[in-house]
Amino acid sequence: MSDDTPSSPLLVISAHAGDFVWRAAGAIALAASRGDRAKVVCLSYGERGESARAWREGRGLDEIKALRRGEAEAAAAELGAEIEFLDAGDYPLRETPELVDRLVRVYREFEPAVVLTHTLADPYNGDHPAAARMALQARVLAQAIGYDAPGDPLGAPPVFFFEPHQPEQCDFKPDVLLDITPVFERKRKAMERLPAQVHMWEYYTELAKRRGVQLKRNAGPNLGLPHDTRAEAYVRLYPQTTAVLA
Amino acid sequence: MSDDTPSSPLLVISAHAGDFVWRAAGAIALAASRGDRAKVVCLSYGERGESARAWREGRGLDEIKALRRGEAEAAAAELGAEIEFLDAGDYPLRETPELVDRLVRVYREFEPAVVLTHTLADPYNGDHPAAARMALQARVLAQAIGYDAPGDPLGAPPVFFFEPHQPEQCDFKPDVLLDITPVFERKRKAMERLPAQVHMWEYYTELAKRRGVQLKRNAGPNLGLPHDTRAEAYVRLYPQTTAVLA
Amino acid sequence: MSDDTPSSPLLVISAHAGDFVWRAAGAIALAASRGDRAKVVCLSYGERGESARAWREGRGLDEIKALRRGEAEAAAAELGAEIEFLDAGDYPLRETPELVDRLVRVYREFEPAVVLTHTLADPYNGDHPAAARMALQARVLAQAIGYDAPGDPLGAPPVFFFEPHQPEQCDFKPDVLLDITPVFERKRKAMERLPAQVHMWEYYTELAKRRGVQLKRNAGPNLGLPHDTRAEAYVRLYPQTTAVLA
Amino acid sequence: MSDDTPSSPLLVISAHAGDFVWRAAGAIALAASRGDRAKVVCLSYGERGESARAWREGRGLDEIKALRRGEAEAAAAELGAEIEFLDAGDYPLRETPELVDRLVRVYREFEPAVVLTHTLADPYNGDHPAAARMALQARVLAQAIGYDAPGDPLGAPPVFFFEPHQPEQCDFKPDVLLDITPVFERKRKAMERLPAQVHMWEYYTELAKRRGVQLKRNAGPNLGLPHDTRAEAYVRLYPQTTAVLA
Amino acid sequence: MSDDTPSSPLLVISAHAGDFVWRAAGAIALAASRGDRAKVVCLSYGERGESARAWREGRGLDEIKALRRGEAEAAAAELGAEIEFLDAGDYPLRETPELVDRLVRVYREFEPAVVLTHTLADPYNGDHPAAARMALQARVLAQAIGYDAPGDPLGAPPVFFFEPHQPEQCDFKPDVLLDITPVFERKRKAMERLPAQVHMWEYYTELAKRRGVQLKRNAGPNLGLPHDTRAEAYVRLYPQTTAVLA
Amino acid sequence: MSDDTPSSPLLVISAHAGDFVWRAAGAIALAASRGDRAKVVCLSYGERGESARAWREGRGLDEIKALRRGEAEAAAAELGAEIEFLDAGDYPLRETPELVDRLVRVYREFEPAVVLTHTLADPYNGDHPAAARMALQARVLAQAIGYDAPGDPLGAPPVFFFEPHQPEQCDFKPDVLLDITPVFERKRKAMERLPAQVHMWEYYTELAKRRGVQLKRNAGPNLGLPHDTRAEAYVRLYPQTTAVLA
Repeated sequence: MSDDTPSSPLLVISAHAGDFVWRAAGAIALAASRGDRAKVVCLSYGERGESARAWREGRGLDEIKALRRGEAEAAAAELGAEIEFLDAGDYPLRETPELVDRLVRVYREFEPAVVLTHTLADPYNGDHPAAARMALQARVLAQAIGYDAPGDPLGAPPVFFFEPHQPEQCDFKPDVLLDITPVFERKRKAMERLPAQVHMWEYYTELAKRRGVQLKRNAGPNLGLPHDTRAEAYVRLYPQTTAVLA
Repeated sequence: MSDDTPSSPLLVISAHAGDFVWRAAGAIALAASRGDRAKVVCLSYGERGESARAWREGRGLDEIKALRRGEAEAAAAELGAEIEFLDAGDYPLRETPELVDRLVRVYREFEPAVVLTHTLADPYNGDHPAAARMALQARVLAQAIGYDAPGDPLGAPPVFFFEPHQPEQCDFKPDVLLDITPVFERKRKAMERLPAQVHMWEYYTELAKRRGVQLKRNAGPNLGLPHDTRAEAYVRLYPQTTAVLA
Repeated sequence: MSDDTPSSPLLVISAHAGDFVWRAAGAIALAASRGDRAKVVCLSYGERGESARAWREGRGLDEIKALRRGEAEAAAAELGAEIEFLDAGDYPLRETPELVDRLVRVYREFEPAVVLTHTLADPYNGDHPAAARMALQARVLAQAIGYDAPGDPLGAPPVFFFEPHQPEQCDFKPDVLLDITPVFERKRKAMERLPAQVHMWEYYTELAKRRGVQLKRNAGPNLGLPHDTRAEAYVRLYPQTTAVLA
Repeated sequence: MSDDTPSSPLLVISAHAGDFVWRAAGAIALAASRGDRAKVVCLSYGERGESARAWREGRGLDEIKALRRGEAEAAAAELGAEIEFLDAGDYPLRETPELVDRLVRVYREFEPAVVLTHTLADPYNGDHPAAARMALQARVLAQAIGYDAPGDPLGAPPVFFFEPHQPEQCDFKPDVLLDITPVFERKRKAMERLPAQVHMWEYYTELAKRRGVQLKRNAGPNLGLPHDTRAEAYVRLYPQTTAVLA
Repeated sequence: MSDDTPSSPLLVISAHAGDFVWRAAGAIALAASRGDRAKVVCLSYGERGESARAWREGRGLDEIKALRRGEAEAAAAELGAEIEFLDAGDYPLRETPELVDRLVRVYREFEPAVVLTHTLADPYNGDHPAAARMALQARVLAQAIGYDAPGDPLGAPPVFFFEPHQPEQCDFKPDVLLDITPVFERKRKAMERLPAQVHMWEYYTELAKRRGVQLKRNAGPNLGLPHDTRAEAYVRLYPQTTAVLA
Repeated sequence: MSDDTPSSPLLVISAHAGDFVWRAAGAIALAASRGDRAKVVCLSYGERGESARAWREGRGLDEIKALRRGEAEAAAAELGAEIEFLDAGDYPLRETPELVDRLVRVYREFEPAVVLTHTLADPYNGDHPAAARMALQARVLAQAIGYDAPGDPLGAPPVFFFEPHQPEQCDFKPDVLLDITPVFERKRKAMERLPAQVHMWEYYTELAKRRGVQLKRNAGPNLGLPHDTRAEAYVRLYPQTTAVLA
């Protein structure tokens, strides 16, 4: 990052250890490739709700948590991101004042310019909206000078919801299509760091193609876009602020 | 415009002669100040539905049309925009294949990179949604190589709806706040070119302040934003395509 | 009506001859009982789409129209309302500039203080939304001094949608429950003026009970409401304006 | 209040000490001017989340709470309202069974005929929806004879949401516009009792004008409405019950 | 049940003791008549919020709970259903991890093929959405092999919301109309097991007629449907999966 | 079709010649494989709006229409469906009373038990909603005995919207997932009859996989579903009527 470019740290708050890979690895790799800090906070390891294979193999709880942690660390490293685990437990992920307070401290310390998290609706997984509600509540609290936590009051970073597994059922209507073509291979490698979920590699590779096709359809006179454009879809929570309509 | 900057022509399609001033003058002046072409197409003069004072003064139809045309030309000139009048009549503005075809030809000739128009819902004024429907239909038709009109097929320029008079009643939930501070004085002068509507000058000056306050609230760490930020609100029809989340 | 009470004329615009009886007879009878003028405008007789029994009996088109007209006149007389038939044809009821213009003239002449019409959505009957769209368009046009029709520009009378046959499927979420207990017997008698639809008498008598139960549940400390309260449900199009919250 | 007018007590439940002034002072002053009791319940003082200036001036928590309390008391006095502080803490305002129970007791004691509170959605301030949820839950509980609290079961008073700072982002679509012209000067004076927020005085004075313009546009033949009509916007939660459509 | 028919157990989770009778007795009786197990889980007896008459008669809490339990058992027996009471208290029904865990165990033990519960919105009764949220959360938890409770992971049984008392106010737009004609007399008898609520017998008998009329209107060429068709309305939470469009 | 199975004819109404292949070929092939009649009505050939390659190759209008017709006939034959072309022109497809009347006659003659058509919203292609509006209007008209066209009044066949290209942007939230695994190879072969759109073959093969994964996730205890389940997604317009909840 050149000295005169403003830093734009990216914070990703997810319920389980693997979520950030399938849903936001492209955005993370783009940030890292620009020289911005990117940090993933996993509220749990997904040890109960998203580790079916390990349970069927007869592993124990601690072993599963270590396994998920290792995979997530490897994927984050592939993307150039920091990662922190709050180990708050999953299925259910409980909303507590203490966990929200920990997130406030993360916001105050990391000072993100952009925040990514789950959608507020997901009828297939209650942990995802719970994580999103805490991420949003902590963001607002961190903005208040009167909130008792170290650091300066946070600005108001924009929030983007990343794509859930069954988007229409989660009322996910994409309003941002992010071009991740330059970093797609890195996303693919990060996915491959999660070896228990081979079928997901293909599923999310195909999704990136599908969203890429849509990006081209919405991109105006898209002279420069390659045939194999890859994209991730997002939904904004707050209005975009801009100096140029485009 | 420097030689190496891609041109980004702005097309504004409005039902009546004055709409573009109150609702989109900031976006127009910004485009012009960047050296981009900006063009306003008025489907009617607003001669029946938006000229109450002139009718009360006893003027005739042709006189009113000339009056509205003159004012709109003066306002467009203030903003640095071209303006064209299709004189299709108002109250009601009728949706016809011929009028849509004229708009297709405008799209093909002007090749806009950005399109602004009315919202699709407005329970106070049926001409506004009618104009929007025609603007949208013509945009899609202009993209088809098989549509029989001069020029090349259009790309897929993004569309923004500008702010109606009673936004909530028109289901207008802003998702873009455009910073018009640098050109606000120009917008004010353009408004003053419509002397019959003095009360609107203040109304829309206050609205620009209000939207400016909101812009600052949504702008993240907004170190550079001045106290008197001015903004216009817009709603996107299609997803934003971008290489950076911000 | 005493001399010092402002008149509050009620205008009901319906697609077919019988609609006003099932859906709005209570409101009509209340207006008449207060001494206000009430007027029903039927865009068609419902001769094709709502006269199945007559067709099965082998009657001809003109005979059916006369039959429906007679019934509707009798029901209107029972309620104390004027009635006018525009005979525009049904199934489909066609939206034309001429028919809208006739409605503008009705508005200008009658100067309603309140307007009732169909909902804008009805997947079971396309004539209902068509009637509503024309009623709304004409209301806006009638407000413009520049619209070429006799009479003064209309004020902005509130609009209420009356209840469709399958309310949830028409996105009908009642926001006004009108107490029609004092005139319910008159509504019942008006329904009985439509002898071909005996099953509807019971259906809408039961609906009035059901909406009456809901009215009591929403009426606050409802000391004065009788056990057999009867109600009609409506949806407002525009915000209520008031000097008292209640 | 004359002896033969039924009393119509107004209860306002707000998250922080100042909310009722900006958002509902007109409704409060109208009630008081009619001779009805009006009571404001502040769940917190807004000491952490809405006192940025005081924190920047280096004041302590207790001092800030006292400051906010004093201001709110002065504003309430200006409006002719009672005020009670539950001091439940803010940022975050925690939803607890105990706090809900306290509100049930307020309902049972005060017996409101009308209730005002925050919207259920507010992505900028989690305390507002939390206050609204508690206000609504307590209202329902207070209606049950089996709920163990002093007093008689509550009727079902209508609930109105008052206007949030960024209405569209809170899905606030006004369905009631309240004419506060007769008491606007009193609202202005109440606002001036909050000296730390001078910029808000203008902001909400302008909003009252803007809503006043909209009121006139929706008021039908508004012969009597003055040029400088002032209004507040509200959204109903439950259907209106009425004996007259208007 | 013949040996070669797959069992299709039906689980009904309701907030209070009587809810299942008014809202889902038809579906329960149909399941029982096919030889499927049907089980009702009542989270509370409705002792505080839905027993107004008993309170007015001066009965005590334990007496009321026994009364409600007895009635519900009698109604369930009439329908051929099992019933279980969790006695978690009502008004308010509190959402706790323990109660959710108890429901997970019910799911794992009963292995339902279909689940019925309340709507997620009900502004008249907070216990209903609370019950629904817990029913849904427990269903998802029960699917996870890692969740520590006896039994096998649950499949993904479809969920249907049954009809609330004021459907439109609860955003209840029926997407399934269930023909309960063959068992309607059984539903009526079950209702009559709740002697304190005689007026509800008629109310829900009429509702069954009304929904029956709608069923016939939506049933395509409904040659076989009798004049007195009776129905219950439901809303699906998840997409229907099927091998035939019909 | 065996003699004792009721016939269930399937009618598909699409705007352009190719739509039915990508969006509904599975449903068509399933119907044909059960022995039901399946009929496709193409309102236009898609000659202007969906034949970009042919135009770029310099072909003439009639040649393109013949080309599209031939391809569509081949695809329909592959699926076992009848096909009819109304040649009403595209880009834009105009809504006319005459075209609606032709569709009424198709309904009366074919007597469909199930109808498939486009969604009512599609901001990328105005012909799709236009086709859907006409399909729906004609279906209602065909039900009226008084509508002057040959044949008996239609029953009320259910309507399903098939999946548009960008589902979320068209407010397409699937509520039916149809298992097309047994006929997927036939769908693939039908797609290959449209040789100009090779990239679409893969796109819709992948979509069938994706919807298949979702079907399995929503199918309850899905013991019998194969790994390579394939599905099509649909949205119902009217409530499902059924004798069994499942």
